[in-house]
Amino acid sequence: MGEPRVLTVDMGERSYPIYIGEGLIDQAGKRFAEHGISLKSPILIVTDENIAAGNHLAHLESSLKQAGFTVSTAIVPAGESSKSLTVFQELVTHALQAGLDRKSTIVALGGGVVGDLAGFVAASYMRGIKFVQVPTTILAHDSSVGGKVAVNHPLAKNIIGAFHQPEMVLYDLNTLQTLPKREVSAGLSEVVKHGLIWDADFVAWCDENAERLLALDPEALGYALYKGCSVKAAVVSKDERENDLRAILNLGHTIGHALEAVAGYKQLLHGEAISIGMVGAARLAVKLGASEQVYTVTKHVLSRVGLPVRLPVDLDTDLIMDAMKHDKKFQEGSMTFIVPVAIGRVEINHSVSASLVREIVEQMKQEA
Amino acid sequence: MGEPRVLTVDMGERSYPIYIGEGLIDQAGKRFAEHGISLKSPILIVTDENIAAGNHLAHLESSLKQAGFTVSTAIVPAGESSKSLTVFQELVTHALQAGLDRKSTIVALGGGVVGDLAGFVAASYMRGIKFVQVPTTILAHDSSVGGKVAVNHPLAKNIIGAFHQPEMVLYDLNTLQTLPKREVSAGLSEVVKHGLIWDADFVAWCDENAERLLALDPEALGYALYKGCSVKAAVVSKDERENDLRAILNLGHTIGHALEAVAGYKQLLHGEAISIGMVGAARLAVKLGASEQVYTVTKHVLSRVGLPVRLPVDLDTDLIMDAMKHDKKFQEGSMTFIVPVAIGRVEINHSVSASLVREIVEQMKQEA
Ligand SMILES: NC(=O)c1ccc[n+]([C@@H]2O[C@H](COP(=O)([O-])OP(=O)(O)OC[C@H]3O[C@@H](n4cnc5c(N)ncnc54)[C@H](O)[C@@H]3O)[C@@H](O)[C@H]2O)c1
Ligand SMILES: NC(=O)c1ccc[n+]([C@@H]2O[C@H](COP(=O)([O-])OP(=O)(O)OC[C@H]3O[C@@H](n4cnc5c(N)ncnc54)[C@H](O)[C@@H]3O)[C@@H](O)[C@H]2O)c1
Ligand SMILES: [Zn+2]
Ligand SMILES: [Zn+2]
Repeated sequence: MGEPRVLTVDMGERSYPIYIGEGLIDQAGKRFAEHGISLKSPILIVTDENIAAGNHLAHLESSLKQAGFTVSTAIVPAGESSKSLTVFQELVTHALQAGLDRKSTIVALGGGVVGDLAGFVAASYMRGIKFVQVPTTILAHDSSVGGKVAVNHPLAKNIIGAFHQPEMVLYDLNTLQTLPKREVSAGLSEVVKHGLIWDADFVAWCDENAERLLALDPEALGYALYKGCSVKAAVVSKDERENDLRAILNLGHTIGHALEAVAGYKQLLHGEAISIGMVGAARLAVKLGASEQVYTVTKHVLSRVGLPVRLPVDLDTDLIMDAMKHDKKFQEGSMTFIVPVAIGRVEINHSVSASLVREIVEQMKQEA
Repeated sequence: MGEPRVLTVDMGERSYPIYIGEGLIDQAGKRFAEHGISLKSPILIVTDENIAAGNHLAHLESSLKQAGFTVSTAIVPAGESSKSLTVFQELVTHALQAGLDRKSTIVALGGGVVGDLAGFVAASYMRGIKFVQVPTTILAHDSSVGGKVAVNHPLAKNIIGAFHQPEMVLYDLNTLQTLPKREVSAGLSEVVKHGLIWDADFVAWCDENAERLLALDPEALGYALYKGCSVKAAVVSKDERENDLRAILNLGHTIGHALEAVAGYKQLLHGEAISIGMVGAARLAVKLGASEQVYTVTKHVLSRVGLPVRLPVDLDTDLIMDAMKHDKKFQEGSMTFIVPVAIGRVEINHSVSASLVREIVEQMKQEA
């Protein structure tokens, strides 16, 4: 087990630590107390059915109870559909009935869905109470940095939300052992993305350690999550000074979001869609003058961690182009793209021609 | 008409002006442009049925449209029941359908209900967009300072919300002319409260000018709202430094909230309940050693502006005491009270005995 890795996310007054290691859930009670979480005010744990079926929830509850906390638990259905105002209101009801007050804390035990949902409850209950994240997916390394919390509206994803920084993040690597294989790769997609935008050495490391990552080796996973969180934290905390820097986190997302929309969200996981999107962005970069290697390395490392890198032939090019137009980054024949000019370095290009993007989509379909 | 009064609410980076005067709605287009509200992004006006029945909405729409803004309007039912998650979601739907984006602005044309509701939509739509208040009640002078926005949950008032400062407040005195008499007095209750906690001269002024206020004389109203907003602004912006100062705004609210709960919210308007609550607090102050004059002046000035100062005999003392216990400020036989130690000056007393409060409630009932 040993000592966990610790990363401090620098958000000025609202800075917070991310602990990454094994067995952190069993230490939750101690860490909550250390971080000044009040023993007097009830705590609400929010988790989903899948996670509640394992033993992590029971461990978390007993660790907190042993430390003297009053704990209540709300279990929501697994999946994106729980990020709704309906489930949000149910959680507020639960919080009221459990007597949560201004000094209470809400704990998200789960992936990005539970984190975003419980985080928005914490952001708005009594105009904001404390929030702790205990992520159980690899993808959640992304949502545990930056403070974005939200629920969906039937017409748009993540449209109702807030910025609400957690008090701390306890990333217990043991929880990841039960994660379905497809979710592992999908989560690694954002990990690799953080390398591609910021750190060429880390991209090389992902390539070399792909087998260990897929085998959920705790040492490799811990390092990868630490690096992934570090890059996101660096970008997000610099963003307040360098305007729009945060946009570089959207590498692969312009095409990726369009593919998700056209393929249907059940067909293609978010991480899978942006994997294909990153390959597309790399191709675009080469067209715009980057070395061919940007494309080959991007494609190689993503397939190494089990991700799709080809564009499904059955997706209609017109529909894909239309979906991109809805993505707001599109204006009169040209669009904004995050372009990987080299491995580990991206640029924001505001005038990529839509016809060039169409050409790339077509080419990718031919190779598929 | 002349130039409006202007007050700047000092909230650091998020400071904003409150304009108070006649005919401000007709100048809205110009002022929006001056304050950098984007012409490119659609604006959503939120108002209620009662206000939409008058001509202020039409004036606001045409002023904005003439200045080149794209405007859409959502009309909610009048009354507290619109401060719900259901109406909130309907407004988000409206905002999405009207194409509101990150640079859009939501305008609240109405009283505290519309302000709190539309403000919470602005706080959470795309994690926060711009917000402008155009208050149409006297009570809304209170809600236009401090940035508190919220909706209710069936089990608790204002439990779901945020802090979201407006870009500006346009207080057009002309809108107040149609306000029902009872709402006028209820709004003046919080105006007088701001005097009682902070400014003895202003209390004397309210006494002298009570007739003009009740007659909705624009010059008197403008001054009173300016003073009311100024006191609240001073308290709220100091609160970040002096912890808990904000609590003094609760003068009269401990007893007042209990009376609202016991009498039923329809029976007693909020302003009426806290008027009685302030008289109770003044009585308490005298018991604790303040000059008798604190009580006589408080009672006198409140009745001058048309407010009830007697406790309805039919309200059960036990129920009133119970309701106070739910108010959180209560701990083991003693409770927290804002005590007016002199006219214009209050203290926070954390150990007022519950039995003393009961005695005062009983006495007030005997006098009624
Ligand atoms: N806030 C942000 O900055 C941010 C960033 C990226 C993504 N997100 C959001 O995150 C969500 C996706 O996150 P996700 O991929 O973690 O989804 P998720 O939370 O739905 O988890 C994926 C699936 O894995 C299951 N699961 C979770 N942990 C498990 C475990 N340890 N063992 C077995 N099964 C487990 C879940 O029940 C679910 O079925 C999206 O809603 C997205 O919008 C937010
Ligand atoms: N955010 C804050 O800091 C804060 C402070 C105090 C009160 N509030 C909230 O404010 C609300 C009460 O505000 P309110 O008293 O303004 O209530 P309101 O908005 O319901 O207005 C009272 C009534 O007057 C009508 N009305 C409004 N303007 C009118 C006009 N010009 N002419 C004719 N009729 C008009 C309304 O339709 C309504 O029927 C409560 O929900 C309370 O929680 C918030
Ligand atoms: Zn993503
Ligand atoms: Zn009040």
